[in-house]
Amino acid sequence: MAAPAEPVRRGPYAKTVERRRHILDAAHQVFAARGYHAGSLREVAGEAGISLSNLTHHFPTKEDLLLAVLEQRDRDGAAAKAPAVGLRENLLAQARAAGLPESGAVGFRDRLLAQARANESIPGLIALYAVLSAESTTSDHPGREYFVGRFSLLRSAYLQEFEALREAGRLRDGVDPQIAASSLVALWDGIQLQWLLEPEKVDVAAHLAAFLDLVILPQPNLR
Amino acid sequence: MAAPAEPVRRGPYAKTVERRRHILDAAHQVFAARGYHAGSLREVAGEAGISLSNLTHHFPTKEDLLLAVLEQRDRDGAAAKAPAVGLRENLLAQARAAGLPESGAVGFRDRLLAQARANESIPGLIALYAVLSAESTTSDHPGREYFVGRFSLLRSAYLQEFEALREAGRLRDGVDPQIAASSLVALWDGIQLQWLLEPEKVDVAAHLAAFLDLVILPQPNLR
Repeated sequence: MAAPAEPVRRGPYAKTVERRRHILDAAHQVFAARGYHAGSLREVAGEAGISLSNLTHHFPTKEDLLLAVLEQRDRDGAAAKAPAVGLRENLLAQARAAGLPESGAVGFRDRLLAQARANESIPGLIALYAVLSAESTTSDHPGREYFVGRFSLLRSAYLQEFEALREAGRLRDGVDPQIAASSLVALWDGIQLQWLLEPEKVDVAAHLAAFLDLVILPQPNLR
Repeated sequence: MAAPAEPVRRGPYAKTVERRRHILDAAHQVFAARGYHAGSLREVAGEAGISLSNLTHHFPTKEDLLLAVLEQRDRDGAAAKAPAVGLRENLLAQARAAGLPESGAVGFRDRLLAQARANESIPGLIALYAVLSAESTTSDHPGREYFVGRFSLLRSAYLQEFEALREAGRLRDGVDPQIAASSLVALWDGIQLQWLLEPEKVDVAAHLAAFLDLVILPQPNLR
């Protein structure tokens, strides 16, 4: 499972890495369109243009494949290779790459809204996460642990941001940074779901901006 | 599909109604645990303790069964037979049944939070809606139209509430009732997802209360 990040290797190993990556892209498309339960290895092989036995040589079970898809997404995010295509976890990686402060009052709102706008260009990926995260609540779903961890990671990242804002006197009185952090994650997931169903009607970034404007004060609250 | 609401009929028709209801309860359980795509008619028949051919006599396709499950939920809601088990659409029905005003400043927050607490007792149903609404964004899902309509209905209901609050001078300055309405739906969906994964860690009602406290003023804003 430990596929290296560098794409410019030579020889048979490089080919394996490339083939695996090609399969993961196909799997991602199939799971995004059909969900994990309904998407079959046969469909993924078809999408990748390879045989089923070739596919199961690389990923013996559908569970292996799903976990590899999710890990690949995280690696893409951590490497910040494609900032415009990142998920929310990319915020920190992008901030690091751009030399921005990783948390604090400066730029949180802007970085978040930029990410929301970037997500508009990748509805398939957003749908994948919407379906898989909801499916992961059902019995015996192999992605459950991954999503519990992912939500926990997102909540901590935003908690840091809101705590830094509070220290800067920029959190509205009475706002609990922890509740604000999990609410932001929840609002984002929920409004993306409405947007997936009616993209022309729902503006995700406008909803996030409205929430942040309720929670964050434009000027420090000097008392 | 037009099963009557009264359970106390006699004769073969009453039996059919009862049998259909029994199947719908089983289907509801299977879809909640496995999702629509993965849940099979065979599993539903097993859960209901009937043969597959008996099941398909009542519901020829899985799509028929899914739509009937969703319609049954809505009928239960509309009839407000089981207020504690209702979904969000029940808010209005419950208000009517209790002789409460259907919208306006009085009681919106309380009714909403009571509903959130009641939902804690029905994680299976909440999971069903989480999975089906996310799945409905994927290609060719028979529930798509239903969920587009359901979101639209929820947003309108909350829009009415927030507009009434604005007229009563109880909406915070700068809050757009439309954005507040879709944000409330989104926050509720998103935080319920986090709660389904970690029920002991996430308090849904506390998140809704925090949002409403940001948006609704305790006293009229006299200007």
